[in-house]
Amino acid sequence: MIGSVEVRVRYAETDQMGRAHHRNYLVWCELGRTTLMREHGVSYAEMERSGVMLPVSRAEIEYRGAVGYDELVRIETWVARVRSRDIVFGYRMTRGSDGRLVAVARTTLVSADAEGRPVRLPPETRSLLAALVTERDPE
Amino acid sequence: MIGSVEVRVRYAETDQMGRAHHRNYLVWCELGRTTLMREHGVSYAEMERSGVMLPVSRAEIEYRGAVGYDELVRIETWVARVRSRDIVFGYRMTRGSDGRLVAVARTTLVSADAEGRPVRLPPETRSLLAALVTERDPE
Amino acid sequence: MIGSVEVRVRYAETDQMGRAHHRNYLVWCELGRTTLMREHGVSYAEMERSGVMLPVSRAEIEYRGAVGYDELVRIETWVARVRSRDIVFGYRMTRGSDGRLVAVARTTLVSADAEGRPVRLPPETRSLLAALVTERDPE
Amino acid sequence: MIGSVEVRVRYAETDQMGRAHHRNYLVWCELGRTTLMREHGVSYAEMERSGVMLPVSRAEIEYRGAVGYDELVRIETWVARVRSRDIVFGYRMTRGSDGRLVAVARTTLVSADAEGRPVRLPPETRSLLAALVTERDPE
Repeated sequence: MIGSVEVRVRYAETDQMGRAHHRNYLVWCELGRTTLMREHGVSYAEMERSGVMLPVSRAEIEYRGAVGYDELVRIETWVARVRSRDIVFGYRMTRGSDGRLVAVARTTLVSADAEGRPVRLPPETRSLLAALVTERDPE
Repeated sequence: MIGSVEVRVRYAETDQMGRAHHRNYLVWCELGRTTLMREHGVSYAEMERSGVMLPVSRAEIEYRGAVGYDELVRIETWVARVRSRDIVFGYRMTRGSDGRLVAVARTTLVSADAEGRPVRLPPETRSLLAALVTERDPE
Repeated sequence: MIGSVEVRVRYAETDQMGRAHHRNYLVWCELGRTTLMREHGVSYAEMERSGVMLPVSRAEIEYRGAVGYDELVRIETWVARVRSRDIVFGYRMTRGSDGRLVAVARTTLVSADAEGRPVRLPPETRSLLAALVTERDPE
Repeated sequence: MIGSVEVRVRYAETDQMGRAHHRNYLVWCELGRTTLMREHGVSYAEMERSGVMLPVSRAEIEYRGAVGYDELVRIETWVARVRSRDIVFGYRMTRGSDGRLVAVARTTLVSADAEGRPVRLPPETRSLLAALVTERDPE
Protein backbone atom coordinates (compact mmCIF):
# COMPACT_ATOMS: atom_id res chain seq x y z
CA MET A 1 0.00 0.00 0.00
CA ILE A 2 2.78 2.38 -0.89
CA GLY A 3 2.00 5.05 -3.43
CA SER A 4 4.59 6.18 -5.91
CA VAL A 5 4.71 9.32 -8.02
CA GLU A 6 7.50 10.99 -9.93
CA VAL A 7 8.29 14.67 -10.35
CA ARG A 8 10.92 16.26 -12.53
CA VAL A 9 12.72 19.10 -10.72
CA ARG A 10 11.55 22.39 -12.23
CA TYR A 11 13.98 25.20 -12.94
CA ALA A 12 11.88 27.44 -10.69
CA GLU A 13 12.48 24.94 -7.87
CA THR A 14 16.27 25.34 -7.94
CA ASP A 15 18.22 27.86 -5.88
CA GLN A 16 21.64 29.36 -6.33
CA MET A 17 23.29 26.31 -4.78
CA GLY A 18 22.25 24.64 -8.02
CA ARG A 19 19.87 22.17 -6.40
CA ALA A 20 16.19 21.95 -5.53
CA HIS A 21 15.49 24.35 -2.65
CA HIS A 22 14.56 22.47 0.53
CA ARG A 23 11.06 23.99 0.84
CA ASN A 24 9.96 22.13 -2.31
CA TYR A 25 10.21 18.76 -0.61
CA LEU A 26 7.12 19.72 1.41
CA VAL A 27 5.30 20.39 -1.88
CA TRP A 28 6.39 16.99 -3.20
CA CYS A 29 5.15 15.31 0.00
CA GLU A 30 1.79 17.03 -0.55
CA LEU A 31 1.78 15.67 -4.09
CA GLY A 32 2.67 12.20 -2.82
CA ARG A 33 -0.13 12.02 -0.27
CA THR A 34 -2.88 13.54 -2.44
CA THR A 35 -1.94 11.12 -5.23
CA LEU A 36 -1.99 8.15 -2.83
CA MET A 37 -5.38 9.27 -1.49
CA ARG A 38 -6.84 9.83 -4.98
CA GLU A 39 -5.69 6.39 -6.11
CA HIS A 40 -7.55 4.84 -3.18
CA GLY A 41 -10.81 6.70 -3.56
CA VAL A 42 -10.23 9.74 -1.35
CA SER A 43 -10.23 12.96 -3.37
CA TYR A 44 -8.78 15.75 -1.27
CA ALA A 45 -10.42 18.30 -3.59
CA GLU A 46 -13.83 16.74 -2.83
CA MET A 47 -13.10 16.52 0.90
CA GLU A 48 -12.52 20.27 0.99
CA ARG A 49 -15.70 20.94 -0.97
CA SER A 50 -17.57 18.90 1.64
CA GLY A 51 -16.11 21.11 4.36
CA VAL A 52 -13.26 19.03 5.77
CA MET A 53 -9.70 20.31 5.43
CA LEU A 54 -6.45 18.60 6.35
CA PRO A 55 -3.94 21.27 7.38
CA VAL A 56 -0.43 20.10 8.27
CA SER A 57 0.28 20.25 12.00
CA ARG A 58 3.78 18.84 11.97
CA ALA A 59 6.49 18.14 9.38
CA GLU A 60 9.86 16.50 9.74
CA ILE A 61 12.30 16.05 6.87
CA GLU A 62 15.78 14.62 6.63
CA TYR A 63 17.59 15.74 3.51
CA ARG A 64 19.97 12.97 2.48
CA GLY A 65 21.16 13.98 -0.97
CA ALA A 66 20.74 16.91 -3.31
CA VAL A 67 18.76 16.73 -6.55
CA GLY A 68 19.27 19.11 -9.42
CA TYR A 69 17.28 20.70 -12.20
CA ASP A 70 15.63 18.30 -14.62
CA GLU A 71 16.33 15.25 -12.47
CA LEU A 72 13.52 12.88 -11.65
CA VAL A 73 12.51 12.33 -8.04
CA ARG A 74 10.41 9.36 -7.02
CA ILE A 75 8.21 9.98 -3.99
CA GLU A 76 6.97 6.91 -2.15
CA THR A 77 4.17 7.67 0.29
CA TRP A 78 2.35 5.62 2.86
CA VAL A 79 -0.09 6.05 5.72
CA ALA A 80 1.81 5.50 8.97
CA ARG A 81 -1.13 6.04 11.34
CA VAL A 82 -4.78 7.13 11.31
CA ARG A 83 -6.73 8.32 14.34
CA SER A 84 -10.09 10.03 14.66
CA ARG A 85 -8.69 13.50 14.09
CA ASP A 86 -5.26 13.10 12.55
CA ILE A 87 -3.24 11.16 9.99
CA VAL A 88 0.50 10.59 9.77
CA PHE A 89 2.04 10.05 6.35
CA GLY A 90 5.56 8.75 5.72
CA TYR A 91 7.65 9.55 2.65
CA ARG A 92 10.80 8.27 1.02
CA MET A 93 12.24 10.18 -1.92
CA THR A 94 14.83 8.74 -4.27
CA ARG A 95 16.50 9.93 -7.44
CA GLY A 96 14.88 8.44 -10.51
CA SER A 97 18.10 7.81 -12.42
CA ASP A 98 19.86 5.64 -9.84
CA GLY A 99 17.58 5.16 -6.83
CA ARG A 100 19.91 7.10 -4.53
CA LEU A 101 18.15 8.26 -1.33
CA VAL A 102 17.20 11.94 -1.47
CA ALA A 103 15.06 12.42 1.64
CA VAL A 104 12.81 10.81 4.23
CA ALA A 105 9.93 12.68 5.80
CA ARG A 106 6.84 12.44 7.98
CA THR A 107 3.93 14.84 8.16
CA THR A 108 0.95 14.93 10.50
CA LEU A 109 -2.34 16.30 9.19
CA VAL A 110 -5.30 17.22 11.34
CA SER A 111 -8.92 17.14 10.36
CA ALA A 112 -10.49 20.60 10.57
CA ASP A 113 -13.63 22.42 9.46
CA ALA A 114 -13.67 25.53 7.27
CA GLU A 115 -12.96 27.72 10.31
CA GLY A 116 -9.97 25.61 11.25
CA ARG A 117 -11.61 23.93 14.25
CA PRO A 118 -10.65 20.27 14.83
CA VAL A 119 -13.31 17.81 13.69
CA ARG A 120 -13.46 14.05 13.32
CA LEU A 121 -12.45 12.60 9.99
CA PRO A 122 -15.48 11.54 7.92
CA PRO A 123 -15.96 7.83 8.82
CA GLU A 124 -15.66 6.63 5.23
CA THR A 125 -12.41 8.55 4.72
CA ARG A 126 -11.03 7.19 7.96
CA SER A 127 -11.85 3.62 6.91
CA LEU A 128 -10.30 4.05 3.49
CA LEU A 129 -7.13 5.51 5.00
CA ALA A 130 -7.00 2.94 7.83
CA ALA A 131 -6.95 0.18 5.22
CA LEU A 132 -3.77 1.73 3.82
CA VAL A 133 -1.77 1.82 7.04
CA THR A 134 1.68 0.43 6.36
CA GLU A 135 4.48 -0.18 8.80
CA ARG A 136 7.64 0.83 7.15
CA ASP A 137 11.08 1.95 8.06
CA PRO A 138 11.75 4.78 5.61
CA GLU A 139 15.47 4.00 5.60
CA MET B 1 1.15 59.43 -5.94
CA ILE B 2 3.80 56.81 -6.46
CA GLY B 3 4.12 54.16 -3.80
CA SER B 4 7.49 52.75 -2.88
CA VAL B 5 8.35 49.58 -1.02
CA GLU B 6 11.57 47.63 -0.66
CA VAL B 7 12.14 43.88 -0.60
CA ARG B 8 15.35 42.01 0.07
CA VAL B 9 15.80 39.08 -2.33
CA ARG B 10 15.23 35.88 -0.35
CA TYR B 11 17.46 32.85 -0.85
CA ALA B 12 14.36 30.86 -1.76
CA GLU B 13 13.71 33.35 -4.57
CA THR B 14 17.02 32.62 -6.34
CA ASP B 15 17.49 30.01 -9.03
CA GLN B 16 20.57 28.20 -10.28
CA MET B 17 21.51 31.14 -12.51
CA GLY B 18 22.33 32.83 -9.20
CA ARG B 19 19.67 35.51 -9.51
CA ALA B 20 16.07 36.07 -8.49
CA HIS B 21 13.87 33.80 -10.62
CA HIS B 22 11.66 35.80 -12.98
CA ARG B 23 8.34 34.60 -11.49
CA ASN B 24 9.07 36.48 -8.26
CA TYR B 25 8.75 39.85 -9.96
CA LEU B 26 5.00 39.20 -10.17
CA VAL B 27 4.95 38.63 -6.42
CA TRP B 28 6.83 41.89 -5.87
CA CYS B 29 4.34 43.73 -8.10
CA GLU B 30 1.54 42.30 -5.95
CA LEU B 31 3.36 43.58 -2.87
CA GLY B 32 3.81 46.97 -4.50
CA ARG B 33 0.15 47.45 -5.36
CA THR B 34 -1.30 46.13 -2.11
CA THR B 35 1.07 48.40 -0.17
CA LEU B 36 0.10 51.40 -2.32
CA MET B 37 -3.58 50.61 -1.82
CA ARG B 38 -3.22 50.10 1.93
CA GLU B 39 -1.37 53.41 2.30
CA HIS B 40 -4.28 55.16 0.61
CA GLY B 41 -7.10 53.60 2.55
CA VAL B 42 -7.92 50.56 0.42
CA SER B 43 -7.20 47.31 2.27
CA TYR B 44 -7.21 44.46 -0.21
CA ALA B 45 -7.72 42.01 2.68
CA GLU B 46 -10.94 43.85 3.64
CA MET B 47 -12.09 44.09 0.02
CA GLU B 48 -11.94 40.31 -0.25
CA ARG B 49 -13.80 39.86 3.04
CA SER B 50 -16.55 42.11 1.61
CA GLY B 51 -16.79 39.83 -1.43
CA VAL B 52 -14.81 41.70 -4.10
CA MET B 53 -11.65 40.12 -5.50
CA LEU B 54 -9.12 41.57 -7.92
CA PRO B 55 -7.66 38.72 -10.00
CA VAL B 56 -4.93 39.61 -12.50
CA SER B 57 -6.14 39.49 -16.10
CA ARG B 58 -2.96 40.60 -17.81
CA ALA B 59 0.71 41.02 -16.89
CA GLU B 60 3.61 42.37 -18.88
CA ILE B 61 7.16 42.54 -17.57
CA GLU B 62 10.44 43.67 -19.08
CA TYR B 63 13.43 42.34 -17.21
CA ARG B 64 16.23 44.86 -17.54
CA GLY B 65 18.86 43.69 -15.07
CA ALA B 66 19.37 40.76 -12.74
CA VAL B 67 19.25 41.03 -8.95
CA GLY B 68 20.88 38.56 -6.64
CA TYR B 69 20.36 37.07 -3.22
CA ASP B 70 20.30 39.55 -0.35
CA GLU B 71 20.13 42.58 -2.65
CA LEU B 72 17.48 45.21 -2.03
CA VAL B 73 14.90 45.91 -4.73
CA ARG B 74 12.83 49.08 -4.64
CA ILE B 75 9.39 48.70 -6.23
CA GLU B 76 7.68 51.91 -7.30
CA THR B 77 3.99 51.43 -8.05
CA TRP B 78 1.33 53.69 -9.45
CA VAL B 79 -2.22 53.52 -10.77
CA ALA B 80 -2.12 53.99 -14.53
CA ARG B 81 -5.86 53.75 -15.15
CA VAL B 82 -9.11 52.96 -13.33
CA ARG B 83 -12.38 52.03 -14.99
CA SER B 84 -15.61 50.60 -13.61
CA ARG B 85 -14.39 47.01 -13.73
CA ASP B 86 -10.62 47.09 -14.04
CA ILE B 87 -7.46 48.79 -12.85
CA VAL B 88 -4.05 49.03 -14.49
CA PHE B 89 -1.00 49.37 -12.27
CA GLY B 90 2.47 50.38 -13.45
CA TYR B 91 5.71 49.33 -11.76
CA ARG B 92 9.35 50.29 -11.88
CA MET B 93 11.89 48.21 -9.98
CA THR B 94 15.40 49.37 -9.22
CA ARG B 95 18.29 47.98 -7.24
CA GLY B 96 18.49 49.55 -3.79
CA SER B 97 22.27 49.86 -3.71
CA ASP B 98 22.72 51.92 -6.88
CA GLY B 99 19.33 52.68 -8.41
CA ARG B 100 20.07 50.57 -11.50
CA LEU B 101 16.90 49.63 -13.40
CA VAL B 102 15.82 46.04 -12.74
CA ALA B 103 12.41 45.81 -14.42
CA VAL B 104 9.34 47.66 -15.61
CA ALA B 105 5.90 46.09 -15.55
CA ARG B 106 2.17 46.62 -15.97
CA THR B 107 -0.65 44.48 -14.65
CA THR B 108 -4.39 44.70 -15.23
CA LEU B 109 -6.73 43.57 -12.47
CA VAL B 110 -10.42 42.96 -12.87
CA SER B 111 -13.10 43.33 -10.27
CA ALA B 112 -14.87 40.01 -9.60
CA ASP B 113 -17.19 38.43 -7.07
CA ALA B 114 -16.44 35.29 -5.08
CA GLU B 115 -17.50 33.12 -8.03
CA GLY B 116 -15.16 34.99 -10.38
CA ARG B 117 -17.91 36.88 -12.22
CA PRO B 118 -17.04 40.45 -13.25
CA VAL B 119 -18.59 43.11 -11.02
CA ARG B 120 -18.23 46.87 -10.71
CA LEU B 121 -15.59 48.15 -8.32
CA PRO B 122 -17.14 49.42 -5.06
CA PRO B 123 -17.69 53.18 -5.70
CA GLU B 124 -15.57 54.26 -2.74
CA THR B 125 -12.66 52.06 -3.83
CA ARG B 126 -12.92 53.38 -7.36
CA SER B 127 -12.82 56.98 -6.11
CA LEU B 128 -9.85 56.34 -3.89
CA LEU B 129 -7.94 54.66 -6.71
CA ALA B 130 -8.99 57.27 -9.30
CA ALA B 131 -7.46 59.96 -7.12
CA LEU B 132 -4.14 58.11 -7.39
CA VAL B 133 -3.96 57.92 -11.18
CA THR B 134 -0.52 58.98 -12.31
CA GLU B 135 0.79 59.41 -15.81
CA ARG B 136 4.24 58.11 -15.89
CA ASP B 137 6.72 56.74 -18.33
CA PRO B 138 8.24 53.79 -16.46
CA GLU B 139 11.57 54.27 -18.24
CA MET C 1 5.91 21.71 -34.27
CA ILE C 2 3.84 22.52 -31.22
CA GLY C 3 4.86 20.92 -27.96
CA SER C 4 2.29 19.83 -25.46
CA VAL C 5 2.67 19.02 -21.80
CA GLU C 6 0.17 18.68 -18.97
CA VAL C 7 0.43 19.76 -15.37
CA ARG C 8 -1.98 19.11 -12.54
CA VAL C 9 -2.48 22.21 -10.37
CA ARG C 10 -0.72 21.60 -7.05
CA TYR C 11 -2.30 22.60 -3.76
CA ALA C 12 0.76 24.76 -3.08
CA GLU C 13 0.02 26.63 -6.31
CA THR C 14 -3.42 27.81 -5.17
CA ASP C 15 -4.09 31.06 -3.36
CA GLN C 16 -6.95 32.17 -1.16
CA MET C 17 -9.08 33.03 -4.18
CA GLY C 18 -9.24 29.26 -4.60
CA ARG C 19 -7.42 29.18 -7.92
CA ALA C 20 -3.86 28.82 -9.20
CA HIS C 21 -1.95 32.00 -8.31
CA HIS C 22 -1.00 33.94 -11.43
CA ARG C 23 2.79 33.69 -10.91
CA ASN C 24 2.65 29.93 -11.53
CA TYR C 25 1.75 30.41 -15.18
CA LEU C 26 5.33 31.62 -15.73
CA VAL C 27 6.58 28.38 -14.20
CA TRP C 28 4.30 26.38 -16.48
CA CYS C 29 5.60 28.32 -19.50
CA GLU C 30 9.14 27.41 -18.42
CA LEU C 31 8.07 23.79 -18.23
CA GLY C 32 6.45 24.03 -21.68
CA ARG C 33 9.53 25.44 -23.41
CA THR C 34 12.10 23.20 -21.73
CA THR C 35 9.97 20.17 -22.59
CA LEU C 36 9.63 21.32 -26.22
CA MET C 37 13.38 21.89 -26.42
CA ARG C 38 14.24 18.53 -24.82
CA GLU C 39 11.92 16.70 -27.22
CA HIS C 40 13.79 18.28 -30.14
CA GLY C 41 17.30 17.59 -29.00
CA VAL C 42 18.08 20.74 -27.02
CA SER C 43 18.63 20.02 -23.32
CA TYR C 44 18.51 23.24 -21.38
CA ALA C 45 20.34 21.53 -18.49
CA GLU C 46 23.22 20.70 -20.86
CA MET C 47 23.20 24.19 -22.40
CA GLU C 48 23.79 25.67 -18.96
CA ARG C 49 26.56 23.20 -18.19
CA SER C 50 28.25 24.32 -21.44
CA GLY C 51 28.07 27.93 -20.23
CA VAL C 52 25.06 29.33 -22.11
CA MET C 53 22.05 30.49 -20.12
CA LEU C 54 18.67 31.70 -21.38
CA PRO C 55 17.32 34.27 -18.91
CA VAL C 56 13.86 35.69 -19.60
CA SER C 57 13.97 39.30 -20.82
CA ARG C 58 10.27 39.83 -21.38
CA ALA C 59 7.03 38.08 -20.45
CA GLU C 60 3.46 38.83 -21.39
CA ILE C 61 0.48 36.84 -20.18
CA GLU C 62 -3.24 37.16 -20.66
CA TYR C 63 -5.23 35.26 -18.06
CA ARG C 64 -8.49 34.13 -19.66
CA GLY C 65 -9.95 31.72 -17.16
CA ALA C 66 -9.16 30.46 -13.69
CA VAL C 67 -8.00 26.91 -12.94
CA GLY C 68 -8.35 25.29 -9.58
CA TYR C 69 -6.58 22.75 -7.43
CA ASP C 70 -6.22 19.30 -8.95
CA GLU C 71 -7.33 20.43 -12.40
CA LEU C 72 -5.24 19.51 -15.43
CA VAL C 73 -3.75 22.29 -17.54
CA ARG C 74 -2.46 21.58 -21.02
CA ILE C 75 0.38 23.87 -22.10
CA GLU C 76 1.00 24.14 -25.83
CA THR C 77 4.34 25.76 -26.66
CA TRP C 78 5.93 26.85 -29.90
CA VAL C 79 8.91 28.84 -31.12
CA ALA C 80 7.61 32.13 -32.53
CA ARG C 81 10.98 33.58 -33.56
CA VAL C 82 14.71 32.83 -33.31
CA ARG C 83 17.48 35.36 -33.83
CA SER C 84 21.20 35.24 -33.09
CA ARG C 85 20.77 36.31 -29.47
CA ASP C 86 17.16 35.78 -28.54
CA ILE C 87 14.19 33.45 -28.86
CA VAL C 88 10.49 34.16 -28.56
CA PHE C 89 8.21 31.37 -27.36
CA GLY C 90 4.42 31.39 -27.60
CA TYR C 91 2.09 29.52 -25.24
CA ARG C 92 -1.54 28.56 -25.10
CA MET C 93 -2.93 26.98 -21.94
CA THR C 94 -6.23 25.15 -21.78
CA ARG C 95 -8.06 23.21 -19.13
CA GLY C 96 -7.59 19.47 -19.58
CA SER C 97 -11.17 18.50 -18.75
CA ASP C 98 -12.94 20.61 -21.37
CA GLY C 99 -10.38 22.48 -23.46
CA ARG C 100 -11.52 25.88 -22.16
CA LEU C 101 -8.90 28.60 -22.72
CA VAL C 102 -6.94 29.41 -19.56
CA ALA C 103 -4.20 31.74 -20.79
CA VAL C 104 -2.05 32.86 -23.71
CA ALA C 105 1.50 34.05 -23.24
CA ARG C 106 4.75 35.04 -24.92
CA THR C 107 8.22 35.13 -23.41
CA THR C 108 11.50 36.38 -24.86
CA LEU C 109 14.70 34.69 -23.76
CA VAL C 110 18.17 36.07 -24.38
CA SER C 111 21.35 34.09 -24.77
CA ALA C 112 23.88 34.97 -22.06
CA ASP C 113 27.12 33.67 -20.61
CA ALA C 114 27.65 32.72 -16.96
CA GLU C 115 28.25 36.39 -16.09
CA GLY C 116 25.00 37.41 -17.76
CA ARG C 117 26.62 39.06 -20.79
CA PRO C 118 24.77 38.63 -24.09
CA VAL C 119 26.30 36.00 -26.38
CA ARG C 120 25.27 34.37 -29.64
CA LEU C 121 23.23 31.20 -29.40
CA PRO C 122 25.35 28.11 -30.12
CA PRO C 123 24.89 27.54 -33.91
CA GLU C 124 23.55 24.03 -33.50
CA THR C 125 20.98 25.15 -30.93
CA ARG C 126 19.92 28.00 -33.17
CA SER C 127 19.42 25.64 -36.11
CA LEU C 128 17.43 23.17 -34.05
CA LEU C 129 15.19 25.94 -32.74
CA ALA C 130 14.88 27.66 -36.13
CA ALA C 131 13.49 24.43 -37.56
CA LEU C 132 10.71 24.61 -34.98
CA VAL C 133 9.51 28.13 -35.78
CA THR C 134 5.73 28.07 -36.06
CA GLU C 135 3.41 30.89 -37.02
CA ARG C 136 0.43 30.67 -34.84
CA ASP C 137 -2.30 32.85 -33.51
CA PRO C 138 -2.58 31.78 -29.88
CA GLU C 139 -6.29 32.60 -29.84
CA MET D 1 21.10 36.54 21.58
CA ILE D 2 17.75 35.96 19.96
CA GLY D 3 17.20 37.56 16.61
CA SER D 4 13.82 38.91 15.65
CA VAL D 5 12.45 39.76 12.24
CA GLU D 6 8.93 40.38 11.00
CA VAL D 7 7.31 39.36 7.73
CA ARG D 8 3.90 40.28 6.43
CA VAL D 9 2.15 37.28 4.83
CA ARG D 10 2.12 37.81 1.05
CA TYR D 11 -0.93 37.01 -1.02
CA ALA D 12 1.21 34.63 -3.05
CA GLU D 13 1.98 32.75 0.18
CA THR D 14 -1.67 31.89 0.87
CA ASP D 15 -3.42 28.76 -0.32
CA GLN D 16 -7.06 27.94 -0.83
CA MET D 17 -7.52 27.19 2.87
CA GLY D 18 -7.14 30.96 3.22
CA ARG D 19 -3.93 30.79 5.24
CA ALA D 20 -0.19 30.84 4.61
CA HIS D 21 0.79 27.53 2.99
CA HIS D 22 2.96 25.44 5.30
CA ARG D 23 6.01 25.38 2.99
CA ASN D 24 6.51 29.13 3.53
CA TYR D 25 7.47 28.63 7.16
CA LEU D 26 10.75 27.13 5.92
CA VAL D 27 11.37 30.29 3.90
CA TRP D 28 10.66 32.43 6.97
CA CYS D 29 13.11 30.31 9.03
CA GLU D 30 15.73 30.94 6.33
CA LEU D 31 15.02 34.65 6.61
CA GLY D 32 15.26 34.46 10.40
CA ARG D 33 18.65 32.76 10.47
CA THR D 34 20.27 34.82 7.68
CA THR D 35 19.09 38.00 9.42
CA LEU D 36 20.45 36.80 12.77
CA MET D 37 23.77 35.91 11.13
CA ARG D 38 24.01 39.22 9.25
CA GLU D 39 23.33 41.19 12.44
CA HIS D 40 26.23 39.39 14.12
CA GLY D 41 28.79 39.81 11.38
CA VAL D 42 28.25 36.63 9.34
CA SER D 43 26.99 37.41 5.85
CA TYR D 44 25.67 34.24 4.27
CA ALA D 45 26.01 35.86 0.83
CA GLU D 46 29.73 36.39 1.47
CA MET D 47 30.17 32.89 2.89
CA GLU D 48 28.88 31.43 -0.37
CA ARG D 49 31.14 33.67 -2.43
CA SER D 50 34.06 32.35 -0.39
CA GLY D 51 33.03 28.80 -1.26
CA VAL D 52 31.20 27.60 1.86
CA MET D 53 27.51 26.75 1.62
CA LEU D 54 25.09 25.79 4.38
CA PRO D 55 22.49 23.42 2.94
CA VAL D 56 19.70 22.26 5.25
CA SER D 57 20.08 18.64 6.35
CA ARG D 58 17.08 18.41 8.64
CA ALA D 59 13.97 20.46 9.36
CA GLU D 60 11.25 19.98 11.93
CA ILE D 61 8.25 22.24 12.28
CA GLU D 62 5.22 22.22 14.53
CA TYR D 63 2.38 24.32 13.18
CA ARG D 64 0.43 25.68 16.12
CA GLY D 65 -1.86 28.28 14.62
CA ALA D 66 -2.75 29.55 11.16
CA VAL D 67 -1.80 33.00 9.87
CA GLY D 68 -3.60 34.73 7.07
CA TYR D 69 -2.88 37.15 4.27
CA ASP D 70 -1.54 40.53 5.34
CA GLU D 71 -0.94 39.42 8.93
CA LEU D 72 2.43 40.09 10.52
CA VAL D 73 4.52 37.15 11.72
CA ARG D 74 7.40 37.67 14.13
CA ILE D 75 10.20 35.12 13.72
CA GLU D 76 12.52 34.72 16.69
CA THR D 77 15.69 32.81 15.83
CA TRP D 78 18.56 31.52 17.91
CA VAL D 79 21.57 29.24 17.57
CA ALA D 80 20.86 26.05 19.51
CA ARG D 81 24.18 24.31 18.81
CA VAL D 82 27.35 24.75 16.74
CA ARG D 83 29.79 21.98 15.91
CA SER D 84 32.68 21.79 13.46
CA ARG D 85 30.47 20.85 10.52
CA ASP D 86 26.90 21.71 11.45
CA ILE D 87 24.69 24.27 13.13
CA VAL D 88 21.25 23.89 14.67
CA PHE D 89 18.92 26.87 14.68
CA GLY D 90 15.74 27.17 16.73
CA TYR D 91 12.72 29.29 15.76
CA ARG D 92 9.57 30.55 17.39
CA MET D 93 6.97 32.31 15.28
CA THR D 94 4.18 34.41 16.71
CA ARG D 95 1.46 36.57 15.24
CA GLY D 96 2.40 40.24 15.30
CA SER D 97 -1.02 41.53 16.29
CA ASP D 98 -1.47 39.52 19.49
CA GLY D 99 1.61 37.39 20.11
CA ARG D 100 -0.30 34.13 19.60
CA LEU D 101 2.02 31.18 18.90
CA VAL D 102 2.12 30.27 15.20
CA ALA D 103 4.91 27.69 14.98
CA VAL D 104 8.09 26.34 16.52
CA ALA D 105 10.86 24.86 14.40
CA ARG D 106 14.41 23.57 14.31
CA THR D 107 16.69 23.21 11.31
CA THR D 108 20.13 21.66 11.02
CA LEU D 109 22.55 23.10 8.45
CA VAL D 110 25.74 21.42 7.34
CA SER D 111 28.86 23.12 6.10
CA ALA D 112 29.68 22.08 2.52
CA ASP D 113 31.91 23.15 -0.36
CA ALA D 114 30.68 24.12 -3.82
CA GLU D 115 30.43 20.44 -4.80
CA GLY D 116 28.35 19.67 -1.73
CA ARG D 117 31.10 17.81 0.15
CA PRO D 118 31.12 18.33 3.93
CA VAL D 119 33.80 20.76 5.14
CA ARG D 120 34.60 22.39 8.44
CA LEU D 121 33.00 25.73 9.16
CA PRO D 122 35.45 28.62 8.69
CA PRO D 123 36.94 29.16 12.22
CA GLU D 124 35.87 32.78 12.41
CA THR D 125 32.29 31.92 11.45
CA ARG D 126 32.22 29.12 13.97
CA SER D 127 33.43 31.46 16.73
CA LEU D 128 30.90 34.12 15.85
CA LEU D 129 28.06 31.59 15.84
CA ALA D 130 29.29 29.83 19.01
CA ALA D 131 29.07 33.13 20.85
CA LEU D 132 25.38 33.23 19.96
CA VAL D 133 24.41 29.83 21.33
CA THR D 134 21.27 30.20 23.40
CA GLU D 135 19.49 27.57 25.43
CA ARG D 136 15.85 28.08 24.98
CA ASP D 137 12.66 26.16 25.22
CA PRO D 138 10.72 27.29 22.16
CA GLU D 139 7.40 26.82 23.94
